[in-house]
Amino acid sequence: MVSSIVVYGGSGALGRAIVTAFVQKQWAVTSIDFVANQEATTNILLEKSDSLEEQGKRVIGAVGGQVDAIVCVAGGWAGGNAASPDLFANSELMWKQSVHSSLVAAHLASKTLKSGGLLTLTGAYPAQKGTPFMIGYGMAKAAVHQLVASLAGPDSGIPADAKVNAILPVTLDTPMNRSGMPNADFTSWTPCSEVAETIYAWATNAIPVTSGKLVEIVTKDSKTSYTEK
Amino acid sequence: MVSSIVVYGGSGALGRAIVTAFVQKQWAVTSIDFVANQEATTNILLEKSDSLEEQGKRVIGAVGGQVDAIVCVAGGWAGGNAASPDLFANSELMWKQSVHSSLVAAHLASKTLKSGGLLTLTGAYPAQKGTPFMIGYGMAKAAVHQLVASLAGPDSGIPADAKVNAILPVTLDTPMNRSGMPNADFTSWTPCSEVAETIYAWATNAIPVTSGKLVEIVTKDSKTSYTEK
Repeated sequence: MVSSIVVYGGSGALGRAIVTAFVQKQWAVTSIDFVANQEATTNILLEKSDSLEEQGKRVIGAVGGQVDAIVCVAGGWAGGNAASPDLFANSELMWKQSVHSSLVAAHLASKTLKSGGLLTLTGAYPAQKGTPFMIGYGMAKAAVHQLVASLAGPDSGIPADAKVNAILPVTLDTPMNRSGMPNADFTSWTPCSEVAETIYAWATNAIPVTSGKLVEIVTKDSKTSYTEK
Repeated sequence: MVSSIVVYGGSGALGRAIVTAFVQKQWAVTSIDFVANQEATTNILLEKSDSLEEQGKRVIGAVGGQVDAIVCVAGGWAGGNAASPDLFANSELMWKQSVHSSLVAAHLASKTLKSGGLLTLTGAYPAQKGTPFMIGYGMAKAAVHQLVASLAGPDSGIPADAKVNAILPVTLDTPMNRSGMPNADFTSWTPCSEVAETIYAWATNAIPVTSGKLVEIVTKDSKTSYTEK
């Protein structure tokens, strides 16, 4: 019996690394994104104009059968403080990119996640505190953090023994970050393949998961450590 | 010089109590809501169909001059876990009711709040942890909690010496709650007038405010206590 995973945001930098890792392990991989990931077994395509309801309809039902893992690494970033003329637009965008995807992943988990399965969402290290210079981003990620706590609680609607957590990377080593910060210290950035392998270890119980936790991912001198909060 | 306050949600149960309290103290009171509060000095009316941008446009600019306090008590409640067919609709509604209003209040503060002024938002006691039976509500309130931390931080866009906090009541003694829970122990509910008087004390520095804090409001045996978290 082939194991299966859904990767929400499967065409982003981290998403592609996760798709690659699980395909290599012979899993059936469904990618959900605006563009197809040719490496994935199946693709579900979204439209950027989708409302939350529309996005939900495209995804729920398109995923057949029961799955072993659902990972949501969709998201984005925008800055701006409370005085920014873009405060409203950016807050709505951050809500859409991080929260819509996480909510659809959560609802999908309630319909399709196997007993004992893994649901991993994506939070943000700095959003554990205030983020005055990126207000909308911080709010959306704080909402995702609280969602993880809710989903791990009793009668949350997903299997009671499911493993729910969130990854909180600081900076991922992606082509976009390399071009945006060409002079940064790359030895403090986390390789996407590193995170993908850890998620595989969680999904297969090679590394235990404490449900409801936020997992801080910190890389220093090219060595990555994981801390459950 | 007359002191002035903006009450976002000034026609709700708690909002009306706040408008009454400040009018009695001879403050100029602007109420923002879907319906006018006749007791208020000025009313700004919103439409339920407003987007965040539209709501912002109605409010910003309509508030003249500088204000001493901005209080946002707009909000609502909806339940449902991750399996609920209403998950998406309720999450969007909670975001709109609690977060849109809080974001407009924050942006308004960046434009009009006096040095040393008060900005009080409304959080929720249970959203400090997971809320599996009310997922959308918990996420929206967690976002508001994180917004308070952001606004109290450096260069948040509001005056550096402003006092920012959120009230986290458990159950307010409102007509709606009385009709919804007629057999509850009302001695554990917090009177709206009690909260209004406390906000007045914060606004006038009769009671000091620690900026960035969530203030839990717990009533037991008809006695209300406030705990900064």
